[in-house]
Amino acid sequence: VPSLPPTPRRTCIGVFDSGVGGLTVLKALLEVIPQADYVYFGDTARLPYGSRSVETVSKYAIEASRYLEQHGAQILVIACNTATALALDLITKAVGVPVIGVVEPGAEQAAAQTRNRKAVVIGTQATVSSHAYLKALDSRGVQTREKACPLFVPLVEEGWIDHPVTEQVARLYLAEAFADGFQSADVLLLGCTHYPLLKPVLTRVVAEHVSIVDSAESTAQAVAKLLRRIPLVDPTQPERRHLPRLRFFATDSVEKFRCLGARFLGHSIDDVQHVDLKE
Amino acid sequence: VPSLPPTPRRTCIGVFDSGVGGLTVLKALLEVIPQADYVYFGDTARLPYGSRSVETVSKYAIEASRYLEQHGAQILVIACNTATALALDLITKAVGVPVIGVVEPGAEQAAAQTRNRKAVVIGTQATVSSHAYLKALDSRGVQTREKACPLFVPLVEEGWIDHPVTEQVARLYLAEAFADGFQSADVLLLGCTHYPLLKPVLTRVVAEHVSIVDSAESTAQAVAKLLRRIPLVDPTQPERRHLPRLRFFATDSVEKFRCLGARFLGHSIDDVQHVDLKE
Repeated sequence: VPSLPPTPRRTCIGVFDSGVGGLTVLKALLEVIPQADYVYFGDTARLPYGSRSVETVSKYAIEASRYLEQHGAQILVIACNTATALALDLITKAVGVPVIGVVEPGAEQAAAQTRNRKAVVIGTQATVSSHAYLKALDSRGVQTREKACPLFVPLVEEGWIDHPVTEQVARLYLAEAFADGFQSADVLLLGCTHYPLLKPVLTRVVAEHVSIVDSAESTAQAVAKLLRRIPLVDPTQPERRHLPRLRFFATDSVEKFRCLGARFLGHSIDDVQHVDLKE
Repeated sequence: VPSLPPTPRRTCIGVFDSGVGGLTVLKALLEVIPQADYVYFGDTARLPYGSRSVETVSKYAIEASRYLEQHGAQILVIACNTATALALDLITKAVGVPVIGVVEPGAEQAAAQTRNRKAVVIGTQATVSSHAYLKALDSRGVQTREKACPLFVPLVEEGWIDHPVTEQVARLYLAEAFADGFQSADVLLLGCTHYPLLKPVLTRVVAEHVSIVDSAESTAQAVAKLLRRIPLVDPTQPERRHLPRLRFFATDSVEKFRCLGARFLGHSIDDVQHVDLKE
């Protein structure tokens, strides 16, 4: 009987996003599951997915997911709201490992946290138009107001994280979102992977009774929960390293990914490889 | 001897952009050349071109240009800074009609207008990185500061045209651009087709000695000049219509093009057709 290859001592988690935003999800995962290794795929040459058709988003997301699977991912996190909203089922069918998106975990935590069953979700225009969060919260009995905040992503990418302009924009957006029957909403769900960087500003701007739920953190918790149910490692194998190994793949400029990405991950990005996928 | 088809009474001008921004160029063209008909192509499903490779931008721009040629364009205006910067020569070779981009006319007018040979050019990150305007102005003996203003396009698309946030952002960007030896620059060249909408705000923000040069207007003037040299119509043919005929093609949602586009063109957009090009 041929012996099976030994189960690795460390789980390898694949994280996929159209760009660098998913690095906030990776950051949350590193806090919750520091004992894993990670491969990250940023499809930076083909972003933004928001303006593309379901067919194209599915095709791109499946290509990236398979790439991560081939590079060792034993579990796949779709850290991209558009890909989760449009293609989660197709991705799940196309790969051989468990897949978790960002929408369900975020909605689950928002539903658990709201006391008066009223929530506000903010995201990009594409995410809001998909109504993915609205459906997920509606099925949990939470009345939901969706509000697109198209200036937040460019403000974050400009580096104006804790900036008076960003605070002014946030005041205008949130005043609109928490109006007309939603003054009493007590949860603000961040439905975009760029938004965790704006938490300091958003915390200052929202009313005191509102708690902020971050899809990135909720997703990391959901992955940890899944790993407790289906352990992918053999704890009897010797542990060789203490720090997680992080590998990154980007379809556009490696330098740009490194520079912009560090801001999202919270520390420097070293091991980035360029991947050429057809546009 | 078979008789040639009669030369049309009205010139048909093709205008191409990756999105709706080029409609500011069409607007300028309609003011300067109201006696022509127009076909406009907005490659809205494949924007933004700024993050794509030279090969991809060339391929996309040539596809769109040929489409316009097939739909009657006798002269082609590349109303897209990225496509002009990266692919103007290849487009010119690929089509059988005269081609005009936005960079040379803008640089020409800026050079004509500056008295102290110092100009500031603002544009997207992609346009600034291409240094297309810097080269065009440098060859005309004008010392140039380039400044990327990545928040202007999302602010315009959000509809915050004449808005306190936009004015604050403009003050910050222009203070940086007109610093360190460029306080005396006396021309501000708008190197992005979205920026003409910000002229009221920019006029308030720049110093009094600065005149604003708009690439869209300069390009319209350049097209008018070309038409005087190579008349494409037979003035003896009877004139049938008084108003220009406008036809639009968009690769993404027709409804979105209509809504967003009206703001750039300054009036409603009626005749839009969806075109399916491979992503």
